[in-house]
Amino acid sequence: MSAHPQLNKNGELQHLLTTEGLPASILQHILDTAESFTGVTEREVKKIPLLRGKSVFNLFFEPSTRTRTTFEIAAKRLSADVINLNMAVSSQTKGETLLDTVDNLSAMHADMFVVRHSLSGAAHLIAKHVRPEIHVINAGDGWHAHPTQALLDVFTIRRYKQDFRALRVAIIGDILHSRVARSQIHALTTLGVPEIRVIAPKTLLPARVERLGVHVYPDMAAGLKDVDVLMMLRLQRERMQSAHLPSSEEYFKYYGLTPEKLALAKPDAIVMHPGPMNRGVEIDSDVADGTQSVILPQVNFGIAVRMAVMSILAGN
Amino acid sequence: MSAHPQLNKNGELQHLLTTEGLPASILQHILDTAESFTGVTEREVKKIPLLRGKSVFNLFFEPSTRTRTTFEIAAKRLSADVINLNMAVSSQTKGETLLDTVDNLSAMHADMFVVRHSLSGAAHLIAKHVRPEIHVINAGDGWHAHPTQALLDVFTIRRYKQDFRALRVAIIGDILHSRVARSQIHALTTLGVPEIRVIAPKTLLPARVERLGVHVYPDMAAGLKDVDVLMMLRLQRERMQSAHLPSSEEYFKYYGLTPEKLALAKPDAIVMHPGPMNRGVEIDSDVADGTQSVILPQVNFGIAVRMAVMSILAGN
Amino acid sequence: MSAHPQLNKNGELQHLLTTEGLPASILQHILDTAESFTGVTEREVKKIPLLRGKSVFNLFFEPSTRTRTTFEIAAKRLSADVINLNMAVSSQTKGETLLDTVDNLSAMHADMFVVRHSLSGAAHLIAKHVRPEIHVINAGDGWHAHPTQALLDVFTIRRYKQDFRALRVAIIGDILHSRVARSQIHALTTLGVPEIRVIAPKTLLPARVERLGVHVYPDMAAGLKDVDVLMMLRLQRERMQSAHLPSSEEYFKYYGLTPEKLALAKPDAIVMHPGPMNRGVEIDSDVADGTQSVILPQVNFGIAVRMAVMSILAGN
Repeated sequence: MSAHPQLNKNGELQHLLTTEGLPASILQHILDTAESFTGVTEREVKKIPLLRGKSVFNLFFEPSTRTRTTFEIAAKRLSADVINLNMAVSSQTKGETLLDTVDNLSAMHADMFVVRHSLSGAAHLIAKHVRPEIHVINAGDGWHAHPTQALLDVFTIRRYKQDFRALRVAIIGDILHSRVARSQIHALTTLGVPEIRVIAPKTLLPARVERLGVHVYPDMAAGLKDVDVLMMLRLQRERMQSAHLPSSEEYFKYYGLTPEKLALAKPDAIVMHPGPMNRGVEIDSDVADGTQSVILPQVNFGIAVRMAVMSILAGN
Repeated sequence: MSAHPQLNKNGELQHLLTTEGLPASILQHILDTAESFTGVTEREVKKIPLLRGKSVFNLFFEPSTRTRTTFEIAAKRLSADVINLNMAVSSQTKGETLLDTVDNLSAMHADMFVVRHSLSGAAHLIAKHVRPEIHVINAGDGWHAHPTQALLDVFTIRRYKQDFRALRVAIIGDILHSRVARSQIHALTTLGVPEIRVIAPKTLLPARVERLGVHVYPDMAAGLKDVDVLMMLRLQRERMQSAHLPSSEEYFKYYGLTPEKLALAKPDAIVMHPGPMNRGVEIDSDVADGTQSVILPQVNFGIAVRMAVMSILAGN
Repeated sequence: MSAHPQLNKNGELQHLLTTEGLPASILQHILDTAESFTGVTEREVKKIPLLRGKSVFNLFFEPSTRTRTTFEIAAKRLSADVINLNMAVSSQTKGETLLDTVDNLSAMHADMFVVRHSLSGAAHLIAKHVRPEIHVINAGDGWHAHPTQALLDVFTIRRYKQDFRALRVAIIGDILHSRVARSQIHALTTLGVPEIRVIAPKTLLPARVERLGVHVYPDMAAGLKDVDVLMMLRLQRERMQSAHLPSSEEYFKYYGLTPEKLALAKPDAIVMHPGPMNRGVEIDSDVADGTQSVILPQVNFGIAVRMAVMSILAGN
């Protein structure tokens, strides 16, 4: 495997594991392809036969109705056969190893694996192991990466803000436990966003986060000044140890996005959230449902972006 | 929203939430459309492409293999893509509100939601909330309504008895906890059935049930005399508080349908049951499997009726 | 029902319940049909419309991700609609009988039932009960039979060894709890394999196993001598009572297939396993991943064999 384990020898996408190290040309190709899958209206995504006869396996070792559903819909819109496997209750419990499971499913003519796992690196491990005709998409591994979420985020930004090279973007909240934040930072950097800020209390920041090229703001007032894009993060209570866990009220007071705090950003700033939202914790309902919110368009674009990734991996 | 929240401004079906207030013309249109989906033999239901490219989401907040399966089959026979969501184990548990979940699924290009919920009014709430291009079908909400079950029941009656205006119909059993009974009474009344009887012990009757226009019989002997149609209900033990709960033996003795009791009805009376049956509790096996039973045809017609509802909602 | 309840009056396959008593001509027909579904390369299995418009119901009363998935893929490759029913959590819990459940699903236009049940005879019971236009495939019942596993095993043997009549085959391990072993022995015998050995400790052998026409070897050294095919079995710990249960270390020492033990067989012997494997218990990783292992091709052929069975049952 090369330094870019997700590219093949010709520099084409072989697997989608992380946005880290993904060339700008490939990011742009995914975004352009996703654009071609959206219709005249936002709602319109046509059913097309690009993956007819292919089998997409949703391998979810960690439950996620939302992510699993978006991949299932995207694959069905491409006319693939979709097999949902809830691996939490499967042959893993019969003593089979992860790679034996993958080998078996591969032998059942899988063409693509969509993998969600609680352990960082699980999708990489599978990608390294499978035959070259099988493609792996990381649908979230531990705290590490969630590349299709980051791709739909940058797709959304491009839709509303066009030129990445003129943007000031703030990522706000629980950076420490967020695979989404890591993937966003890599994608935004590669696409040329000149200023990425992270706004979070110290307890929710990874060590040496500045090495990712971001500017750290412990305070919303300073951090939100003049930003074009606000990317809220979900407070991942389920991944926190009690020492890290702020009370919801306290968190909302300092980091919850209210109309007052939003007013500090540029007047045409957009507000994003990967969902599911904790209303009244990281975001106020007036903002979530307000005119600057593009949270539902994000979900919508997520289908087109996942169709694009699958379509490109399948060689179209 | 108008007094008929399930009709649009042109008086067409926008959602199917309840049979209450549904005009006879719409009921007849559903029944006629269902008729067109059945083949020469009862078993024959052709696969047709009326919903090709549409996505039907089965949103089941309460498990129901049987009802979910019939909707899944009906949607697939119309060539729709079907997404099954077991909402008991989904992002609801991550703190997302019901309407945020619905908004997210809507943004994933849902065309139709089939909703089963333990709370009365859940499907109405969702229908009020979604964009006009999305249609909602109530697949059972609390004790309130189960309109597709009532529609397949009246479809079955029409198949065997033709003219609703000449019928004496008895609904027998646990009326109190039955969303099915409410929906049946509304549909039968609208279709012109002149005499609807409910036969049940006082403890299993809602307060002031006579206001629905039905005649109450505490006793099977009197209630079954000369009826054309017997609609048995399932004893909903899982919804009963212990004060209401009769023993199975006692219930069967007084209200279980035996050949002897059935003989009190008209000789060509038909026997219906929405399933799943408790044999030996509300119905004797000799009746359930006897020549007057139309219980399995009901299930069969349920596919055609659900196809008809989906097809009409989709604008065909 | 005749002595061969899985054949119709014309001697054609009506249900697939067991390999016991299945004529050689039908076994050969299944193998030949499966052959026609495999492509030029092993991976190539084309999507074909032989079951378009048909509904295949996966009725799994016992969970089995692997087997359920292979049937789902096979049915989808034949263009059938597939309905997965996890019967462990379904209306069975609402007091419905097995046959009422089956009748209801039949009335929903099922064309084929794939049945997995923990009780021996469950698939037979269902097959006896359904209308003639519905076909039943046994996907494993108790300790009794697992015919599609046996069929993919003999398909694999034919691929690698051609002539059954020249083979010495050893089945190794937990014969007592294995529905797979019983089905294998019947299929191999019918296809003319002259010498079938079973190698197992006494505690894992059924009483009077010799009556099946097999030769019993308590010892690997003697049993493996000169065999052409080694069919390993999974140690079914979940089906064992503690009195039968050997320690993994002890079992591996005497019956685990190591390269040293494998060397006792013919140099071109093939090694099979129905999965999921317990590495280090019944098989050493060097053997499982070695050049003589055909374990993954077995999985692959399982799709084609199940397509063949479904296709033949559907009358093609």
